[in-house]
Amino acid sequence: MDIAALRAAHPDHWMKAAAIRTLTLDAVAAANSGHSGMPMGMADVATVLFEKHLRFDPKAPRWADRDRFILSAGHGSMLVYALMYLTGYEDITLQQIKDFRQWGARTAGHPEYGHAAGIETTTGPLGQGIANSVGFAIAEEHLRARFGTSLINHYTYVIAGDGCLMEGVSQEAIGLAGKQELSHLIVFWDNNGITIDGKVDIADVTNQPARFAASGWHVQEIDGHDPVAINTAIEAAKKDKRPSMIACKTHIALGSSAQDTSKGHGALTDAKLIADAKAAYGWTAGAFEVPAQIKAGWEAMGQRGAAAHAEWTARFNALSDTKKADFERIFRAEAPKGLPAKIRALKKEISEKQPKVATRKSSEMVLDVVNPLMKETIGGSADLTGSNNTLTKDLGTFGVENRKGRYVYFGIREHGMAAAMNGMVLHGGVRPYGGTFMAFTDYARGAMRLSALMGAPVIYVMTHDSIGLGEDGPTHQPVEHLSMLRATPNTYVFRPADTVETAEAWEIALTSTSTPSVLALSRQNLPTVRKTHTNTNLTAKGAYVLAEATGKRQVILMASGSEVEIALAARDQLEAAGIGTRVVSVPSMELFRAQDEAYRKRVLPAGPARIAIEAGVRQSWDWLLLGERGREAKAAFVGMEGFGASAPAEVLYEKFGITAANVAQKAKGLIG
Amino acid sequence: MDIAALRAAHPDHWMKAAAIRTLTLDAVAAANSGHSGMPMGMADVATVLFEKHLRFDPKAPRWADRDRFILSAGHGSMLVYALMYLTGYEDITLQQIKDFRQWGARTAGHPEYGHAAGIETTTGPLGQGIANSVGFAIAEEHLRARFGTSLINHYTYVIAGDGCLMEGVSQEAIGLAGKQELSHLIVFWDNNGITIDGKVDIADVTNQPARFAASGWHVQEIDGHDPVAINTAIEAAKKDKRPSMIACKTHIALGSSAQDTSKGHGALTDAKLIADAKAAYGWTAGAFEVPAQIKAGWEAMGQRGAAAHAEWTARFNALSDTKKADFERIFRAEAPKGLPAKIRALKKEISEKQPKVATRKSSEMVLDVVNPLMKETIGGSADLTGSNNTLTKDLGTFGVENRKGRYVYFGIREHGMAAAMNGMVLHGGVRPYGGTFMAFTDYARGAMRLSALMGAPVIYVMTHDSIGLGEDGPTHQPVEHLSMLRATPNTYVFRPADTVETAEAWEIALTSTSTPSVLALSRQNLPTVRKTHTNTNLTAKGAYVLAEATGKRQVILMASGSEVEIALAARDQLEAAGIGTRVVSVPSMELFRAQDEAYRKRVLPAGPARIAIEAGVRQSWDWLLLGERGREAKAAFVGMEGFGASAPAEVLYEKFGITAANVAQKAKGLIG
Repeated sequence: MDIAALRAAHPDHWMKAAAIRTLTLDAVAAANSGHSGMPMGMADVATVLFEKHLRFDPKAPRWADRDRFILSAGHGSMLVYALMYLTGYEDITLQQIKDFRQWGARTAGHPEYGHAAGIETTTGPLGQGIANSVGFAIAEEHLRARFGTSLINHYTYVIAGDGCLMEGVSQEAIGLAGKQELSHLIVFWDNNGITIDGKVDIADVTNQPARFAASGWHVQEIDGHDPVAINTAIEAAKKDKRPSMIACKTHIALGSSAQDTSKGHGALTDAKLIADAKAAYGWTAGAFEVPAQIKAGWEAMGQRGAAAHAEWTARFNALSDTKKADFERIFRAEAPKGLPAKIRALKKEISEKQPKVATRKSSEMVLDVVNPLMKETIGGSADLTGSNNTLTKDLGTFGVENRKGRYVYFGIREHGMAAAMNGMVLHGGVRPYGGTFMAFTDYARGAMRLSALMGAPVIYVMTHDSIGLGEDGPTHQPVEHLSMLRATPNTYVFRPADTVETAEAWEIALTSTSTPSVLALSRQNLPTVRKTHTNTNLTAKGAYVLAEATGKRQVILMASGSEVEIALAARDQLEAAGIGTRVVSVPSMELFRAQDEAYRKRVLPAGPARIAIEAGVRQSWDWLLLGERGREAKAAFVGMEGFGASAPAEVLYEKFGITAANVAQKAKGLIG
Repeated sequence: MDIAALRAAHPDHWMKAAAIRTLTLDAVAAANSGHSGMPMGMADVATVLFEKHLRFDPKAPRWADRDRFILSAGHGSMLVYALMYLTGYEDITLQQIKDFRQWGARTAGHPEYGHAAGIETTTGPLGQGIANSVGFAIAEEHLRARFGTSLINHYTYVIAGDGCLMEGVSQEAIGLAGKQELSHLIVFWDNNGITIDGKVDIADVTNQPARFAASGWHVQEIDGHDPVAINTAIEAAKKDKRPSMIACKTHIALGSSAQDTSKGHGALTDAKLIADAKAAYGWTAGAFEVPAQIKAGWEAMGQRGAAAHAEWTARFNALSDTKKADFERIFRAEAPKGLPAKIRALKKEISEKQPKVATRKSSEMVLDVVNPLMKETIGGSADLTGSNNTLTKDLGTFGVENRKGRYVYFGIREHGMAAAMNGMVLHGGVRPYGGTFMAFTDYARGAMRLSALMGAPVIYVMTHDSIGLGEDGPTHQPVEHLSMLRATPNTYVFRPADTVETAEAWEIALTSTSTPSVLALSRQNLPTVRKTHTNTNLTAKGAYVLAEATGKRQVILMASGSEVEIALAARDQLEAAGIGTRVVSVPSMELFRAQDEAYRKRVLPAGPARIAIEAGVRQSWDWLLLGERGREAKAAFVGMEGFGASAPAEVLYEKFGITAANVAQKAKGLIG
């Protein structure tokens, strides 16, 4: 690249962009780790975007109608931090830049949601950002239709790298966005031709513009270092009704001796390389120094957004108090005050009627109550609507013809669905839930972990949660998944036993503002086990005594979900044999763990033999079986040791020994 | 569709295809579950493929040079079973067809590898089959180059549905296959326009031929019910040097009243519907009956393959005994006899030299010994070659110019890599291993579970296995992943503490023929802890005493991987304080669980306090901490309770309290 020519052609632009490049070089060098090349390559695109287009107010980084800027290529985190520092976000001071990648700094190795207002989502695992952005854009389209353009009318801009586009989740995102014609979604592809292992073409020869076009995107190809071309392309993208991809031909680590190489992708820490690059840029300021005039130029960019924000606030303030409060409530992801009463009423009705239904059907019964009350819910399924029972009356289908629709046909795209739901939650104003089979948690894991890490209260409706799904066989039968999810920090795993517990689980999930929830739901019908109504949400305790022993308590049976019925039947057999047996329902281990020790001991006192029953592997039950402090306890587990099989569900339960008779026999063995 | 016209145009073909359709209808009706429409829609393609092209010998279903037929749309399993029954595979009798989806039958709900010779891979989770097929085709290209076309020269045929193509993993497969110009890979897309939730276009408008073409595929579009067009397309596909996609416009549930509907996707069990469809087909035979002439026509198809097989056998038998034995060995996935001696020699050298290296580097040292010995290994990485240390000298890059190359640049495609490795193992003759960061297990989960379910001994080289990776932060730091993998049946999870254990783990992984292995390897340097050479593979015991207590044994410290060093340092502190402390290294919980009780009790006797140390969550340690039978034991865990953070590794260990001092303090607390 002829750096001198670039400098000469657009000197003001050049120096602004150089500020990003030099801050990146300095911060990576100080940290002695990180990724220099990407921010250096995309600085021109980012500068034009921020200067000419991005509507943002650094003093109000949570303004609902701001444009969203998402760095899908999260390893280039210094791009985000430099932009935030330069434009004057309070959370990212110069000291934060100097503390890049250090303990306690907001400037983590990859952008972490929650570390600083203005970081819109956590990225780093490649492809997540672009897949999140589809959710951001769905939320925006929907809320624009719901509230009108005077309140919601903004763009979602994404920078994605070659890695993002090679990850399969990007195809799911591209396909979904193309179908939905998300007109306010604009993706810049950092087409630098370099990955860690070498040139992109050692692994991929995909014509990316053609690929995007195949899914209905508007596509442009530009020189990513030409500010005029960048601006023109953004203007064209904003005008087009389709989602837009702008392929930006760039040079990674521009202007350094590592330009256009894999080395340039990583941490450039060599003092001479840095000095030479700065000299090429015409940059004479010291390390971490940005000349006042250049800094002022950056800070001025936020003024366009600040003015727009002020106008927006005036319009917002003209709303009725009720409307304002509701708008603010849904952007805080808070459930409406009326929710608990509705849930209680449903619980009461269920305890009286005692239906025998699958908990996936129970979930639909809850949604029938929730969705009319909470207009912010957006449901969906990865092409299993009739199986997941996620669609309720009157939601309407979200689509080009009906942006007010609240049901998304996500397609056969579990990972894309999960990532899009993360994006919706992070955008705010909508409350997404989405369904698939529990076994396909495997496909969505990459995004589900990020729900947990970000504290995004997405609700996963995972039906067909065990061998109880029957004939589809072991590929579709989760066995290890409950333990996997319980091992994941900051994740509620609910496995309700009946409709009452399902309602309670939904209530907790919907009132959570910083923890995602997984509802593990049965395919097969289950009896109502909560036959006496309580106003208290017992599921919130995590585990509770469902049936007490008669006389001396010799055995405690613990179970979740569809196996609670089996525990109750085993109790009947044991009690008939004079063996006092308590049944503890365990809908959520996380919430039980959060109870105080006194409560936990009341539910699971020392002494009696303990048996846990769950049609999955044992791992996550050991702490309850073996005692939190290693208390002596005779313990056994009735569940799965390996993968399932293809046969009718009742045959499988019998063949795998998950039966009341087997539980009763084991209990007798333990106490005998 | 004008069924009568189809019948009249190609009456022989029609009746053969009708046999697939009617067997499907009958089997699904008998099982009262399953998927009728897909086999009914793709019967014409399958019939032409088997009659005119597929080189197979039903009497020798494991013949190494057979064409492979992969049903990626695995829910249409009756297509496979019908084809196998009709052509005369011994494992699939008529009784098996009648027992579709019943306990113990080979004819599971989805095709299960191992249930019957001839089922090439387990499918059902969508997209896996097409992604496996890339591995099959890589193996074929490589072995064709290695052994010559007289021994290896066959095609991989795939039927993929809309669901397969919506799943992100398909993009990873398409990209990899396109780059690698896999000339013997031919994919039929069952373009029926229908998914479970409705028409495909409620979720996707992607132009699939354009998408494949964008990644370098040869693409054709045909009427999937026209046998002449099908045959012509296959002929053209075989001639083209690129991987080929044939878009077959079909009608799901062809000829039934459910044709072209979502209902047709599922189980068609209505007697009248079935009778009407059979009438439309001109099919007068009873349920499960195939007229002898039609059956004979199907059985004749295998004769072309049987003749080719006989010729192949003659060529094979002309090889030297050594070459024959080696060919057969690698197709049995057996390690060479010389492996243990090489591993022992390396262990001895390491125990003497005692290097301080990261176990990812240790892994490379092992591969330096293994790869020259085992010419069947094929290594690779998802764009982290220099970090995963998966490339050794002289492997050569697999590519169009060098089909003998043994290193695959998989690109940033963890899921596609894992699925391709499954395909390579299932093809036989190659022994794949592939690397990425441990945290990105999340991305590969869908295929890793299938390695376990199929018993495919894939080796996953998962480096950067904890917060020890440092600055990249929580997105890149696995915390729950060890517990997740340990919860998965039939999976070896190795977390070696040093180079010696790494060599032992590799030996077990390479000699396993039915269990995949995950090697969890450190980024950071670790001392050699096995300073005394043993010929015995101690890792094969799963856990063993690494350092014995001096005097009275009061504490047992258990640890894996990078935390063994911490356990040893804590032991030094405790011993110095007069507290006898044993250190148990736990490189594999699965293998320890497989030991007899006497051994397990010798390693972990009752009495002493137990502390487990691992820079991950506690869940999978509970059974060792709390005692297998609930023995009383004072127990503590030193590890992670939540996600990690971005900072230098040593700072993180200190901040999260995973230090020798903390362990020693906890131990004193437990025994005090």
